[in-house]
Amino acid sequence: MGRVTERRRVLRIRDGAVSTRPDTLVAEEPLEIRLNGRPLAITMRTPGDDFALAAGFLVSEGVLAAASDLRNIVYCAGATSDGSNTYNVVDVSTAPGVVLPEFGLERNVYTSSSCGLCGKASLDAVRTTTRWPIADTPPVRVTPGLLACLPERLRAAQRVFDRTGGLHAAALFTEDGELLDTREDVGRHNAVDKLVGRALQNGDLPLSRTILMVSGRASFELAQKAVMAGVPVLAAVSAPSSLAVDLAAETGLTLVGFLRGGSMNVYAGEDRIALPEAAPGTEPASRS
Amino acid sequence: MGRVTERRRVLRIRDGAVSTRPDTLVAEEPLEIRLNGRPLAITMRTPGDDFALAAGFLVSEGVLAAASDLRNIVYCAGATSDGSNTYNVVDVSTAPGVVLPEFGLERNVYTSSSCGLCGKASLDAVRTTTRWPIADTPPVRVTPGLLACLPERLRAAQRVFDRTGGLHAAALFTEDGELLDTREDVGRHNAVDKLVGRALQNGDLPLSRTILMVSGRASFELAQKAVMAGVPVLAAVSAPSSLAVDLAAETGLTLVGFLRGGSMNVYAGEDRIALPEAAPGTEPASRS
Repeated sequence: MGRVTERRRVLRIRDGAVSTRPDTLVAEEPLEIRLNGRPLAITMRTPGDDFALAAGFLVSEGVLAAASDLRNIVYCAGATSDGSNTYNVVDVSTAPGVVLPEFGLERNVYTSSSCGLCGKASLDAVRTTTRWPIADTPPVRVTPGLLACLPERLRAAQRVFDRTGGLHAAALFTEDGELLDTREDVGRHNAVDKLVGRALQNGDLPLSRTILMVSGRASFELAQKAVMAGVPVLAAVSAPSSLAVDLAAETGLTLVGFLRGGSMNVYAGEDRIALPEAAPGTEPASRS
Repeated sequence: MGRVTERRRVLRIRDGAVSTRPDTLVAEEPLEIRLNGRPLAITMRTPGDDFALAAGFLVSEGVLAAASDLRNIVYCAGATSDGSNTYNVVDVSTAPGVVLPEFGLERNVYTSSSCGLCGKASLDAVRTTTRWPIADTPPVRVTPGLLACLPERLRAAQRVFDRTGGLHAAALFTEDGELLDTREDVGRHNAVDKLVGRALQNGDLPLSRTILMVSGRASFELAQKAVMAGVPVLAAVSAPSSLAVDLAAETGLTLVGFLRGGSMNVYAGEDRIALPEAAPGTEPASRS
């Protein structure tokens, strides 16, 4: 392992001045995820935390929902011609009694096995598949001031980004804003899968008293991952998509976008945002 | 179509002030791509240019390489319970005689069917699959000054981003820096697929005298798409991954990263960069 970054020679041009120097790049390698021996998906990821990535991916796909669903995860050897282990193939074995969703043989499960042929079907699939409905979680209430602090805390925790500029980051915070865990990956969805998978392995699912913060946009896929792990609040530095907002509204997820410099937009689940008194143009939520 | 953006009500918080207002979001919907009637992949995309997206996806996957490989593309009806067309399923028919690559039934083709189990296998697959080897293309030479102008030209051409902040953009430029085409999508790979697919439909493949510019990072997947379409120069605003650099070096692709404000890093294919005279620390490339 230890292949999170790699060095390459680069020709650097700065306002006409040319130099060559070594540069640190984020590592990217394919990872094949197998389920009980059967190849299920390939993702391009930053090596490291591969077992967590595989476990988190299977949470999103509705296969795993608790540590007890998992028997073990191993690297498969023998992928190369000389039989050596590439550490790019992992096999996840489920515990006896775990019912596997039906994966269409010709379907791309990775983008999302739960995607129907229209947005509404995609929403319904996530809402009915999750084992951790957000409506069942204890009431979590966060202030705008607390949310405003999270991007800086995420940024401070990003280690590899500073060296490569090439990583997406995701972090889990407590409802009080304490950093629980953070992961970086060349793929935005992988960073979240690694967080969720690690939580599953630790017996921490559902993540019902946490805030998931992502460094980029909030797509449907990321909102789906939050919902499947029972996360009640998803906050993103950039914009959400329409389908992410619809999924949040339908499942009760609080979705915050454009979280920067004290400002934010709340797209769904406003009841978890503890608003200041007498907010003009708004029906104040109940007080925390 | 016309579903590129959607409106949603949003709770806006700015330094403690709270208001509600309508907000414009980038639309996201699933698209199922079928090949000769067989479901192949599902991607979450911004609706619009769906035929180009499907065609470009199949260029990346090594199915299509020229307009003559394509028979037709249609929307499949009947996906919903009432039989109406969701415009979220497209079927691509290939021309007689087109040999289809073998798609493993249990493989995720979308991330990349050509991904092996290690990075090297992924590189080899792209290098041997492409019908448009970059080494065969006419010599293209670009100056750092020309490259430095491209991000602003891409930004100026981004229409939806200004309203939503939620889109990735990709553009094709001539070797003289003239904008040929630009596409935006909630998915970075989709924006490139739409560009490449449109070019295929127009009979413009290989794109051997063009520069492909992307608004974000340069991943393996994006470098693969450039190589499969015969694009000799890929420029990105942000960082490349290690595997993208390796693929560029192996296939002869010129890969430029961190292209911002007159500065850039050239990671591979330096021979296409027309450097100023007597650059210190560098063996100057031959002059243009």
